Amino acid sequence: MDQRAAYDELIRRFQETRFLESIGSVLGWDERTYMPAKGAAHRAEQMALVARLGHESLTNPRLGELLKEVEASPLAKNTESAEAVNIREIRRLYDIAVKVPGALVEEIARTTTRAQGVWQEARKKNDFAAFAPWLDKIVGLKRQEAEAIGYKDSPYDALLDLYEPGAKAAEITRLFADLRKDLVPLVGAIAEAKTKPRGDILNREFAVDRQHLLGQSAAAAIGFDFAAGRLDTTAHPFCTTFGPGDIRLTTRYNPRDFTPGFFGTLHEAGHGLYEQGLDPAHFGTPMGMAVSLGIHESQSRLWENQVGRGRPFWEHFFPRLQQSFPGTLDDVGLNDFVFAINKVERSYIRVEADEVTYNLHIILRFEMEQDLIRGNLKPNDVPRAWNEKFKAFFDLVPANDAHGCLQDIHWSMGGLGYFPTYTLGNLYAAQFMDKAREDLPGLEDDFRRGQFARLKTWLNEKIHRQGHKHRPRDLGLKVTGQPLSHQPLMSYLRKKYGALYGIG
Amino acid sequence: MDQRAAYDELIRRFQETRFLESIGSVLGWDERTYMPAKGAAHRAEQMALVARLGHESLTNPRLGELLKEVEASPLAKNTESAEAVNIREIRRLYDIAVKVPGALVEEIARTTTRAQGVWQEARKKNDFAAFAPWLDKIVGLKRQEAEAIGYKDSPYDALLDLYEPGAKAAEITRLFADLRKDLVPLVGAIAEAKTKPRGDILNREFAVDRQHLLGQSAAAAIGFDFAAGRLDTTAHPFCTTFGPGDIRLTTRYNPRDFTPGFFGTLHEAGHGLYEQGLDPAHFGTPMGMAVSLGIHESQSRLWENQVGRGRPFWEHFFPRLQQSFPGTLDDVGLNDFVFAINKVERSYIRVEADEVTYNLHIILRFEMEQDLIRGNLKPNDVPRAWNEKFKAFFDLVPANDAHGCLQDIHWSMGGLGYFPTYTLGNLYAAQFMDKAREDLPGLEDDFRRGQFARLKTWLNEKIHRQGHKHRPRDLGLKVTGQPLSHQPLMSYLRKKYGALYGIG
Repeated sequence: MDQRAAYDELIRRFQETRFLESIGSVLGWDERTYMPAKGAAHRAEQMALVARLGHESLTNPRLGELLKEVEASPLAKNTESAEAVNIREIRRLYDIAVKVPGALVEEIARTTTRAQGVWQEARKKNDFAAFAPWLDKIVGLKRQEAEAIGYKDSPYDALLDLYEPGAKAAEITRLFADLRKDLVPLVGAIAEAKTKPRGDILNREFAVDRQHLLGQSAAAAIGFDFAAGRLDTTAHPFCTTFGPGDIRLTTRYNPRDFTPGFFGTLHEAGHGLYEQGLDPAHFGTPMGMAVSLGIHESQSRLWENQVGRGRPFWEHFFPRLQQSFPGTLDDVGLNDFVFAINKVERSYIRVEADEVTYNLHIILRFEMEQDLIRGNLKPNDVPRAWNEKFKAFFDLVPANDAHGCLQDIHWSMGGLGYFPTYTLGNLYAAQFMDKAREDLPGLEDDFRRGQFARLKTWLNEKIHRQGHKHRPRDLGLKVTGQPLSHQPLMSYLRKKYGALYGIG
Repeated sequence: MDQRAAYDELIRRFQETRFLESIGSVLGWDERTYMPAKGAAHRAEQMALVARLGHESLTNPRLGELLKEVEASPLAKNTESAEAVNIREIRRLYDIAVKVPGALVEEIARTTTRAQGVWQEARKKNDFAAFAPWLDKIVGLKRQEAEAIGYKDSPYDALLDLYEPGAKAAEITRLFADLRKDLVPLVGAIAEAKTKPRGDILNREFAVDRQHLLGQSAAAAIGFDFAAGRLDTTAHPFCTTFGPGDIRLTTRYNPRDFTPGFFGTLHEAGHGLYEQGLDPAHFGTPMGMAVSLGIHESQSRLWENQVGRGRPFWEHFFPRLQQSFPGTLDDVGLNDFVFAINKVERSYIRVEADEVTYNLHIILRFEMEQDLIRGNLKPNDVPRAWNEKFKAFFDLVPANDAHGCLQDIHWSMGGLGYFPTYTLGNLYAAQFMDKAREDLPGLEDDFRRGQFARLKTWLNEKIHRQGHKHRPRDLGLKVTGQPLSHQPLMSYLRKKYGALYGIG
């Protein structure tokens, strides 16, 4: 067989697995936005069928044959060519898929589907004991998965690699230790600062339909193309890709606080800009896919925090916010407003945490899930261990497990290894933004005028269009010239919050 | 192999084809309700993939083996058992699927997908010549399909059977001839009547969000379960089934006329009640599927026209309509209102036609598409033939083809054989309603009180829960005790419109 024909068949077959995945995305989006309650049971059947067909398609032995053929051909030689990148990454995904036995895949799917329901009830009733046996089972299954995939140093690496290809627990541990060492004193200094933001500004009446229009206009302003996407409402916001011209954002609104809806929209729009920025000619192949969850999160955090919580952004948007809710914020000045949306406070709930304390929530989870996977921590001991760590990190003890170790859905979904990518995203975001400011002089003046196209285009070229060409860490190095480090984020936080709180 | 095991495997495999179809329904619904413009190209790929997998699944030779095995077993003997019904209907669908060559299926899909775009442009530009070669190709392909499926008397029968199992062109021709003979003088008498409805009542301002709430409340009142369905907005309204607990209605709103949105919602809710009334235990098998398009349309027409355009219905709903649009209809009395929503007029566009003239539009199309399939009418001659027939049926000549032979999407979709099911639906609706009134004394008093549960339950038991147990005509006979006839519809129309227009 001709090598080009073999490559084309490989791509066609791999694309079919991605097309099936994109069909699953449509089913999942509808489930979380519009589906009526009684549709849930059949929806689960539909999603299971699509997942099974996708797995069958990805583990088809024909893919293995084609891979061998093209790997031996000149197509695989020029390692930065689209062909070589696609061959390398399809090999990686194929190997993972065939290594994990079908029975284990199904068992994980079945267990986590049910565990999510159990977790939801357990959180509602603050009943960790009900969830503990499920967590135990999930940890056991994920350890089996790690063994099946294989690893060098730690089984956790095998799981982490599913979300952040090439990342290792050992180096993240070092990175996070440095970060924590610097974060803790900053959080302490802020807690002791005399200056505090006004607490009343954000808790006013913000009509939900106007919040929606404002969020849409902000997402459009930073460059999200609404002819190739939408914004809908959901309980737990997410961004999902239906196809190269169809990216769906979701958010949720609080009629007494516009910030979750607004910053949630900016966050998801940041993810959406990555997806819209991928090369459509490579859709369904690794060259047209986002490279990792950490890099993905860097894009959402960059727009939400680095841009969207900055003073320049609000020099443009604050008058528009005031106009959107006539009379509501007339008594508020820009400085007070910017301070209010950047309030730092030790708190219990990760998803509500500010930019400074957020990463402590992640480091805590990263430590705990490594202990779980290593077998050093029994699921029954999670509440005690959580509360001890929380006291050490935040000098607070959660009043109950619903505000403690039961707050996140991730473990019930089997997502062990997922949490660290949130902080990796924050680190990358700071580093990318430093480099963007260097490459694009006067960038913040753009923001003051409501102009975001230079930054978006820079991200499109440097990051989005690269697809899977490089490993995430290599991409970071290539874009910024620097290895991943906690320092750019710390410098950003110290400068920004030092000024706001009058410290440092 | 054990016969029960063979039957179970047959059902499981057939259900997979229906599950894939239900996934296609989700993709199609989103395409027509929420999808952004740039999502179209990839959506077509997704839908083609699901259609291909569904066809592969239905034509799997294993189905043929299992069918042979169960057909020879006692399971197939008791012809009204769920097992025997399922075996009979799966055989019918399997035979059709395997008889039509895959290449022809693909060619029809490819041609009609493109032809719909051509038709849309042609209608916009009133350019039949642009569409004619496509119609020619489609007619040729549908004739090939009819030959592949096989037929006794007429190739049209093979196509009709896809929508209305067991129906024959010859008997529909007789039925429609009787209907036309009686309709034409009624339409003439109405045209000459002195009494006319007030023309100004319906063209006022009706806020779209209030129309939506009113339509939802009416659909809920007749029994549509919104925990197992939704109502959304689209350009060309439809009803689609995602699963046994998830039926989606759609409608469209005109802010200057509440009737298209309202009656469109009642119509689709009628379809939705059929789908919600199917036995969920049999979902994905013929015993849990609607029996034909004609019977389906009988349910939508029954609720839209027989119930929804009747005076008793509005004795309950008219005050609610007035309240929904404060001040808008205060000067209108119930009699004038009911007359206005039942205005009869010879007109050009089928989808805007009233209850009386509607069926003449269908009979015209039925005659023309038979001529096309027989080869007695060349696509190039369609405009001339259409206008001649239209003059004969309506004493009007369309000013252009956009208002004539280009108005409907059906032929561009390859839906030859589909049109007659609309009039079959009207005939069945009249016959079912006569029987329901007989079985349920005081039924119209129910409507006057806004009570529709007795009628809905009657339809659930007599029709919906029967699934595919009987052929459509046999179901009609079984429910009403009478063969299908034009007389119940004519009696209903003469009585209702005689009273409104003061004739007869």
